[in-house]
Amino acid sequence: MSVRKLIRNGVLVTASDTFEADILIEHGKITQIGIGLLPDERTEVVDVSGCYVIPGGIDPHTHLDMPFGGTVTADDFATGTAAAAFGGTTTIIDFCLTQKGRPLLESLQQWHDKADGKAAIDYGFHLMIGEMNDQVLEELPQMIEEEGVSSFKVFMAYKNQFQADDAILYQTLQKAKEYGALVMVHAENGDVIDLLVREALAAGRTEPIHHALTRPSILEGEATGRAARLAALADSQLYVVHVTCAEAVEQIARMRELGYRIWGETCPQYLTLDQSIMDQPNFEGAKYVWSPPLREASHQDALWNALKNGQLQTIGSDHCSFNFKGQKDLGKDDFSKIPNGGPVIEDRLSILYSEGVAKGRISLNQWVDLCSTRASKLFGLFPQKGTLAVGTDADIVIFDPAMERELSAATHHMNVDYSAFEGMQVQGCPVTVLCRGEYVIRDQKFAGKPGAGQYVKRAKYDAGVPVPAKKVATTTRG
Amino acid sequence: MSVRKLIRNGVLVTASDTFEADILIEHGKITQIGIGLLPDERTEVVDVSGCYVIPGGIDPHTHLDMPFGGTVTADDFATGTAAAAFGGTTTIIDFCLTQKGRPLLESLQQWHDKADGKAAIDYGFHLMIGEMNDQVLEELPQMIEEEGVSSFKVFMAYKNQFQADDAILYQTLQKAKEYGALVMVHAENGDVIDLLVREALAAGRTEPIHHALTRPSILEGEATGRAARLAALADSQLYVVHVTCAEAVEQIARMRELGYRIWGETCPQYLTLDQSIMDQPNFEGAKYVWSPPLREASHQDALWNALKNGQLQTIGSDHCSFNFKGQKDLGKDDFSKIPNGGPVIEDRLSILYSEGVAKGRISLNQWVDLCSTRASKLFGLFPQKGTLAVGTDADIVIFDPAMERELSAATHHMNVDYSAFEGMQVQGCPVTVLCRGEYVIRDQKFAGKPGAGQYVKRAKYDAGVPVPAKKVATTTRG
Amino acid sequence: MSVRKLIRNGVLVTASDTFEADILIEHGKITQIGIGLLPDERTEVVDVSGCYVIPGGIDPHTHLDMPFGGTVTADDFATGTAAAAFGGTTTIIDFCLTQKGRPLLESLQQWHDKADGKAAIDYGFHLMIGEMNDQVLEELPQMIEEEGVSSFKVFMAYKNQFQADDAILYQTLQKAKEYGALVMVHAENGDVIDLLVREALAAGRTEPIHHALTRPSILEGEATGRAARLAALADSQLYVVHVTCAEAVEQIARMRELGYRIWGETCPQYLTLDQSIMDQPNFEGAKYVWSPPLREASHQDALWNALKNGQLQTIGSDHCSFNFKGQKDLGKDDFSKIPNGGPVIEDRLSILYSEGVAKGRISLNQWVDLCSTRASKLFGLFPQKGTLAVGTDADIVIFDPAMERELSAATHHMNVDYSAFEGMQVQGCPVTVLCRGEYVIRDQKFAGKPGAGQYVKRAKYDAGVPVPAKKVATTTRG
Amino acid sequence: MSVRKLIRNGVLVTASDTFEADILIEHGKITQIGIGLLPDERTEVVDVSGCYVIPGGIDPHTHLDMPFGGTVTADDFATGTAAAAFGGTTTIIDFCLTQKGRPLLESLQQWHDKADGKAAIDYGFHLMIGEMNDQVLEELPQMIEEEGVSSFKVFMAYKNQFQADDAILYQTLQKAKEYGALVMVHAENGDVIDLLVREALAAGRTEPIHHALTRPSILEGEATGRAARLAALADSQLYVVHVTCAEAVEQIARMRELGYRIWGETCPQYLTLDQSIMDQPNFEGAKYVWSPPLREASHQDALWNALKNGQLQTIGSDHCSFNFKGQKDLGKDDFSKIPNGGPVIEDRLSILYSEGVAKGRISLNQWVDLCSTRASKLFGLFPQKGTLAVGTDADIVIFDPAMERELSAATHHMNVDYSAFEGMQVQGCPVTVLCRGEYVIRDQKFAGKPGAGQYVKRAKYDAGVPVPAKKVATTTRG
Repeated sequence: MSVRKLIRNGVLVTASDTFEADILIEHGKITQIGIGLLPDERTEVVDVSGCYVIPGGIDPHTHLDMPFGGTVTADDFATGTAAAAFGGTTTIIDFCLTQKGRPLLESLQQWHDKADGKAAIDYGFHLMIGEMNDQVLEELPQMIEEEGVSSFKVFMAYKNQFQADDAILYQTLQKAKEYGALVMVHAENGDVIDLLVREALAAGRTEPIHHALTRPSILEGEATGRAARLAALADSQLYVVHVTCAEAVEQIARMRELGYRIWGETCPQYLTLDQSIMDQPNFEGAKYVWSPPLREASHQDALWNALKNGQLQTIGSDHCSFNFKGQKDLGKDDFSKIPNGGPVIEDRLSILYSEGVAKGRISLNQWVDLCSTRASKLFGLFPQKGTLAVGTDADIVIFDPAMERELSAATHHMNVDYSAFEGMQVQGCPVTVLCRGEYVIRDQKFAGKPGAGQYVKRAKYDAGVPVPAKKVATTTRG
Repeated sequence: MSVRKLIRNGVLVTASDTFEADILIEHGKITQIGIGLLPDERTEVVDVSGCYVIPGGIDPHTHLDMPFGGTVTADDFATGTAAAAFGGTTTIIDFCLTQKGRPLLESLQQWHDKADGKAAIDYGFHLMIGEMNDQVLEELPQMIEEEGVSSFKVFMAYKNQFQADDAILYQTLQKAKEYGALVMVHAENGDVIDLLVREALAAGRTEPIHHALTRPSILEGEATGRAARLAALADSQLYVVHVTCAEAVEQIARMRELGYRIWGETCPQYLTLDQSIMDQPNFEGAKYVWSPPLREASHQDALWNALKNGQLQTIGSDHCSFNFKGQKDLGKDDFSKIPNGGPVIEDRLSILYSEGVAKGRISLNQWVDLCSTRASKLFGLFPQKGTLAVGTDADIVIFDPAMERELSAATHHMNVDYSAFEGMQVQGCPVTVLCRGEYVIRDQKFAGKPGAGQYVKRAKYDAGVPVPAKKVATTTRG
Repeated sequence: MSVRKLIRNGVLVTASDTFEADILIEHGKITQIGIGLLPDERTEVVDVSGCYVIPGGIDPHTHLDMPFGGTVTADDFATGTAAAAFGGTTTIIDFCLTQKGRPLLESLQQWHDKADGKAAIDYGFHLMIGEMNDQVLEELPQMIEEEGVSSFKVFMAYKNQFQADDAILYQTLQKAKEYGALVMVHAENGDVIDLLVREALAAGRTEPIHHALTRPSILEGEATGRAARLAALADSQLYVVHVTCAEAVEQIARMRELGYRIWGETCPQYLTLDQSIMDQPNFEGAKYVWSPPLREASHQDALWNALKNGQLQTIGSDHCSFNFKGQKDLGKDDFSKIPNGGPVIEDRLSILYSEGVAKGRISLNQWVDLCSTRASKLFGLFPQKGTLAVGTDADIVIFDPAMERELSAATHHMNVDYSAFEGMQVQGCPVTVLCRGEYVIRDQKFAGKPGAGQYVKRAKYDAGVPVPAKKVATTTRG
Repeated sequence: MSVRKLIRNGVLVTASDTFEADILIEHGKITQIGIGLLPDERTEVVDVSGCYVIPGGIDPHTHLDMPFGGTVTADDFATGTAAAAFGGTTTIIDFCLTQKGRPLLESLQQWHDKADGKAAIDYGFHLMIGEMNDQVLEELPQMIEEEGVSSFKVFMAYKNQFQADDAILYQTLQKAKEYGALVMVHAENGDVIDLLVREALAAGRTEPIHHALTRPSILEGEATGRAARLAALADSQLYVVHVTCAEAVEQIARMRELGYRIWGETCPQYLTLDQSIMDQPNFEGAKYVWSPPLREASHQDALWNALKNGQLQTIGSDHCSFNFKGQKDLGKDDFSKIPNGGPVIEDRLSILYSEGVAKGRISLNQWVDLCSTRASKLFGLFPQKGTLAVGTDADIVIFDPAMERELSAATHHMNVDYSAFEGMQVQGCPVTVLCRGEYVIRDQKFAGKPGAGQYVKRAKYDAGVPVPAKKVATTTRG
């Protein structure tokens, strides 16, 4: 382990700036950014000519080692974080599921146990809120203050499983406002979807495409508007995960125009794949079963436009991988039994660069903001992570914009037997990745180790506070 | 003149980041940003503990030494740029008026003559387009390619004076798309305003308040929507100067939602003053005669919200100062003869910090983006100016957030006999200002010199281009 | 009982037309409309010079003899329908509550028993749907086909009491589409309101004003948008009862713009009273406890505008009267125990004329459409009722537009000890009212008899059907 | 000429009602509507079993005997009104063009001369306002008060020909508010269209399709929004003629939501034809050159939806016929020289019935409202014309909904050598048409005579007036 690294000749890209400079890393931190920095003998020099140097990606939405529908995701924290690193991500925030009647802390400990000793990159946890009672109310402040968990997830779908009612969502929003946390929602109308699914199955419609047809986009738009209005009423903050459709974007845009703190995330799959792919023979459609589902192609323009205009602010992978053989086929005869989710953690930055920046849809700086900086700010990692600035963790990705390759299960590093993006040509590739100054990926080869990744306690959500005299303001959200 | 300066112990703020670091300046450029940078003997050390270090403000909207209504603005490039520097601005882009039938180059040369040897900070020029014919069409590419003028202003108001018709505006948008320029509009319906003014005067309504009453906000909304639709049709880019009202914000927001490249600027006066101030006795209202006029107070919320949400992107001063005695009083008996405009160049950053950041309406990073970075990107100054990054011009402001003071004509440095913000308490003050590494303001005292400011040729407008192999993308707009 | 009546010298007003003509009534029907019609000796001539002749009002929203919160409404079908007649209403559609686990038919019979022998004017029933199961599904077609009940009401509020979940609402919409019925919703988010009420009471906020403060308008807007989107998904038709606020109007307008069949009703109280009246001392505010509650005054403009522009289509009274002494005071120490509702059935047409037509907010024809014709068309009474045309029931109101009076409990005919509109000056008064050609009110005196009113079986909802050859189209909705 | 007619066994349809009844006509007026009316010996009985009886169509937008582009429309008042009658129209309002510098009265007299002795049905005139000066201002009240011309047309397009600037439009709106008139606009941005046309021709794009491509829909949306905002500012009333696109509907809907008095008309051609028809070989596209032009097919849904929802209120024909041979071919080599307009006057009601009512897009009552009643109310003909009520002119159409036929130049009665709807199958046909009780069409044969049509002086526009005591309100607009 070298004491120092000097990254030379790259083009640094942050959420705001693009400039040529060298970066000096000492003790895992960026300590200097300068022109023509000179190494001493103990400094390893890394020449990155022709490449972008960007802050490590932050994936705010992953599901590793998660039980779902009688099985467990194919990727655990070892394979999942390694694959993430190959894709240029150096921090993930994974979803910790909770159980009704059980202490939150107990669930959190379970998730720590899953990650401990396995993660190759840094990680934090969001916490699912499925009920609201005295015990939960008592534990919430501790979660934020002591455990570094400052974001809570509420499901409006998955009836009789994860789904919470509007009162629970509203109370979570109230408490988040009071204690300083960000509430996340899966926004689909679970009651009506449950009915549509039962109707479809009763009518013998069992193929994967019916997963999409029983979850129409208007039900996502509805739930998004509902959650946003509850957040507005509570004067709280809301983050809508995996936005997939024009109807949901419209709701978010409208409420933001009125001045409310509503944020939205979308995912690479919704930007590039459409519903027609689910209607293939031989159960192939099962590979693309996400919730919310893929939409008709016209929604993609709405999503790209929303990224460009700032109506959506982040890109999550919603990585939740299941093997096609042995897992997805649990739903061979009943689409509702297909495990929901797919493998995306490795392809997030690459797809956004190739389809976004290289095709002129978003700027380089927006790419960095969407894939790293904004999630860092919203989820209390900033300024430790999410940018290239002196004093920050040296979470750095060397990205070669000229490299061209094809996404494929044959070459990806996720522990799953198919790629959702099989055959997609992408321009640009993360070639070297450092986490706190240490190589995780070096020249496209794994150079990290399981367990090197650290748990990151995240700061409270900060809605913006006036500046006290002689104490500088540090408001970073927004 | 010191060869090097080391700015130590500040909190650096960019459009994206907030972090503690030192900055090394060499030969007028930032060459290093680091922790605990060490000076050699030839390096001047500037300790800025407790202060923010921000990129120098960029004011995209000034009128210095400009003839208007039979008089000339009170501030020329000497007094105006000195005052700008006191307020934390290190670059202005001033409006070069043109004359029908005369070569553009001739007008541009006049403006160079006005600035040459006088400006204490750097400057560029926008060029007014008042007609469209073979001569203009021939000169336009030269303006962009050779003269560094990549933004053109079209007036939709000031009938029989500056006003162009829609065909001229549309052609300017077409050419801007073709050659790479940004079109700016003053968006008010000049034909109807001209009628309303004549009706008011005919009815004996001559006081300053009638300036506002004859320019209702719906006519700004109308013209804004019109210009935005013409830009959309031309697939071009549009920058709406001095947006003052909810109606105009609605139009910009709607067209941006549809994916068009429409940008909007507002000004400190519209965020903090309202129309009622124009209805004072003794002609006092004349001090506040701007076009568009001050609006009813409810519009201020719409503007702040638009800044927060990104529907408006920049803050200009629209500085255009006239003395109350001897100039404003030209309109003593006829509001239409009151010279339009007011002194704002010095107070732009301070008001935005005090009313925006300190009151929790915008974040620190948004403040920097609004007052400097975004204008730099939109107008082709980036990355030379508008951020703190190695390689950029060392245009730097040391801003003390704890200092409190009162705005007043008694203490301001603008060459005009009143302040539009007389008595306003503000928190925060730019204390030291450097332009290309040289002091312009040092500990609140003028330390620059007339003529030290340089003309900056600005780059073409770049709407976002795909990335060629092995050549990194540099798209920065947006 | 005269065989024939000839109404002479009036100005007839329908939803479309205003003209001077005489009306001949035979056997309870209008048989001729003409100029200078001549009576024979068996014809009673009624001279109505100076008056409007309008179709009898249809009140689509009443609650008579209804149990609520441990008490029963003050007005039963005898007093309620007599008061309705005084106010110019000749048909009501009352809400039949149902009970979980009990047959719909049983509830319907209960309501028939309440009305039978008491009603002085004609009546129909809407049916509440509170659950959805095989029994309900089996009974629904019978309700429509045999019982003449073609409208179903679903409550999104009143948790643990009337409230249904979204799946029940959605199924009701599906069945309504299939069988030909109109679904009505009370649109407020019951889950969150329930929480807010419990929070308020826990904090000791027990006064009537807290009824309003715990039911904010954004929760009505939310539920309205939700119901409208479920209706859109089901390709069904939806009628939103008692719309009170701008947020709900926005949702209805948006969905109608997209082409969906969404209809909205508002009530006289929301058009004329505001929330401040609930904050009076001595528990006076309890008189004005409606759900949804009265809103801030600014919402009234939004409602009037929506009536004028056709975004809302009908006026219901939501009559649900409770005495101030002995009933409202059940909630003396707990606003949540105040019986919800108030006395409006008598004042509906008068308030709409006085505040609407006489003040120039709506036209005469819109008044008739809002108070009679549109409800007739939407709820399957047309063309039997709701207009003045030959062949229709002679439900006729003679309305004197010049009469001025003051609304007051001292003079009203509702069986309740206060007036919600006490002291309101109104212009115009229904002076004579006929139902199927018989006097119910004659020269402002009751001339009818309990039991003279008949139950009206209503036709299916008809969404608009193509015209078969040689059979004329009869589509009337819309 | 019979003294009386009795129309028996029909189904009467008004803007509100549908019912079976007989109609007695005496002295050109409807004097009785009743069931089983009995004729005396002097009464002609017309049996109309199986047919609808509707008020005669009112076409608010025709151009007969009008000079345009160096030629004159193919239909004059003789052929045009006869064809109108065949199509079920009994009143037209034709556009009287004016000339700058000439008295309005002179132009009006010219138009009287054109119609006098030729018209087979009744007619009124709109008056074009092309300039605003003392003479025009002086004549305007006389036009309204004495000449019965209460609607003024302003062109925002046709640069250097009919086009007025915004100040003229605004003054017209002001005066219309003051005197009681309705302002009509042709809403397209003439300045930009003029430029686009010149660019297209300069580039050699001369074919008819370029007529459409140089008049994009966004320029209609722009101008519509502009006119609506000027009307809002003037607190006046505005009628937008020939609305063709979603962008314009959006503007009208938005301003109506805000409460302004904005009305919109569309035409049969925009509801049924699309732009692709203009791109045929052999100059065939010239037949379909209207301004605004036909749009892409997707706009048709927006227009139908706007009719259904009341965002657009009337159907005009914009009849302006030119022969394909000898007139349209003036533009053989230059699309800008193709006379604008087409033959529609005969097909207006039939297309709206067949494509609207028979296909379930609008109701029967909406059809009558759109084709007759609403225009009558807006343009001051009501209640004399536009409905079936006693006292009104007996302008009556017997419409057989079962008849099927094909529209064709071979069978139409317009004096023009092609049909814009050649080959269109329509259901329903006007078989007999009466104007003031006299046959114009009898069993599909012309039974009228040139000159039998009368000029109708129209009443002032009435924005809605409070009701004086004992004087009934007659507000009908809206």
